[in-house]
Amino acid sequence: MKIYDIEGFPNPARVRIALAEKGVSDQAEFIAVDVMGGEHRTDAFKAKNPDATVPCLELDDGSHIAQCNAIIEYIDATYDGPSLTGTTPKQRARVSMMNARAEAGLLNAVGAYFHHATPGLGAELETYQCAEWGNNQKEVADRTMAYLDGVLAENDYVAGDSFSAADITAFAGLAFADFANVDIPQSLEHLQAWRAKVAQRPSIAG
Amino acid sequence: MKIYDIEGFPNPARVRIALAEKGVSDQAEFIAVDVMGGEHRTDAFKAKNPDATVPCLELDDGSHIAQCNAIIEYIDATYDGPSLTGTTPKQRARVSMMNARAEAGLLNAVGAYFHHATPGLGAELETYQCAEWGNNQKEVADRTMAYLDGVLAENDYVAGDSFSAADITAFAGLAFADFANVDIPQSLEHLQAWRAKVAQRPSIAG
Repeated sequence: MKIYDIEGFPNPARVRIALAEKGVSDQAEFIAVDVMGGEHRTDAFKAKNPDATVPCLELDDGSHIAQCNAIIEYIDATYDGPSLTGTTPKQRARVSMMNARAEAGLLNAVGAYFHHATPGLGAELETYQCAEWGNNQKEVADRTMAYLDGVLAENDYVAGDSFSAADITAFAGLAFADFANVDIPQSLEHLQAWRAKVAQRPSIAG
Repeated sequence: MKIYDIEGFPNPARVRIALAEKGVSDQAEFIAVDVMGGEHRTDAFKAKNPDATVPCLELDDGSHIAQCNAIIEYIDATYDGPSLTGTTPKQRARVSMMNARAEAGLLNAVGAYFHHATPGLGAELETYQCAEWGNNQKEVADRTMAYLDGVLAENDYVAGDSFSAADITAFAGLAFADFANVDIPQSLEHLQAWRAKVAQRPSIAG
């Protein structure tokens, strides 16, 4: 399989961590997309992924899967190793719920702040900005970090006892927060301790 | 299991359709939440679902699952009957991808327009509005309807050959569009024909 992405960006990082967790990073051929040059918005790329986003997975039959959660579900279901999405209906639902909270409330909220209320990726790429909305979403991110701190006071990982896709999303959200200069308060000690623990995983520390 | 919701609202409708598709509507006890009175924002309700949203599923062990996609995944994995989320890794990924497009691009985009750029649920409940963002999201909804029309020109259903959770999301999105006075162009004939077909399913027509 091929993965169209750009190294170091938050959503591509999610898929790369998932592949590493499953021990199959070498199964993917990574194809760099020139996001800063706008390649993801060309007709050629949108024929693969009409969302005009990276990452995008190309299967060996030539079909494409976009959207991080879909790509990670595919990877998790296709390869052996510890499950990233849960094995019982209840576990799966809990991972899905917590992943959605981490995605909408943290990763995407930080993204909205970055793309709307800061220069973002620059004037060429940020063709529509709504600063008021971006600043509102920063407040959402602040609240979500406090919420996750409470969750992690009572759980080893975001969705319970074991590492899951929800941890990957939250970890990528905090990395994006650092990049966008969104403060991650030291007072959120459970969130900080969890982050330090997750950062040591071989899928992330290398 | 118990489902806290309010009949007739778009996201609660998604779960009710999913239950009916699986033939297990009678397995759920529905508990009405007084959303118009703000009950979903009380501490008592947020102890169940900190997102302060309906629907929220309460399992027999007393734990709670919020977020429509998580609830529908739970229902689909727990009960027999045709799968709503796909049975192979590739099918599951395709349903997840198309569901995400229908949710972010249509249902949630119409919701953002309704809650931000119209009186929404009224001044008591709409405590923060950003009209510019709401109007931008209406444009996103318009583009997503056109995109889905193209998908449905080549596929029987939103995620391919069979009815799935992605159809439920898109159908609820169009119902919300009607409610919010977002025009669904008659020229989108594939989308209109799919909608008429889906509306005849027993899970929706009753």
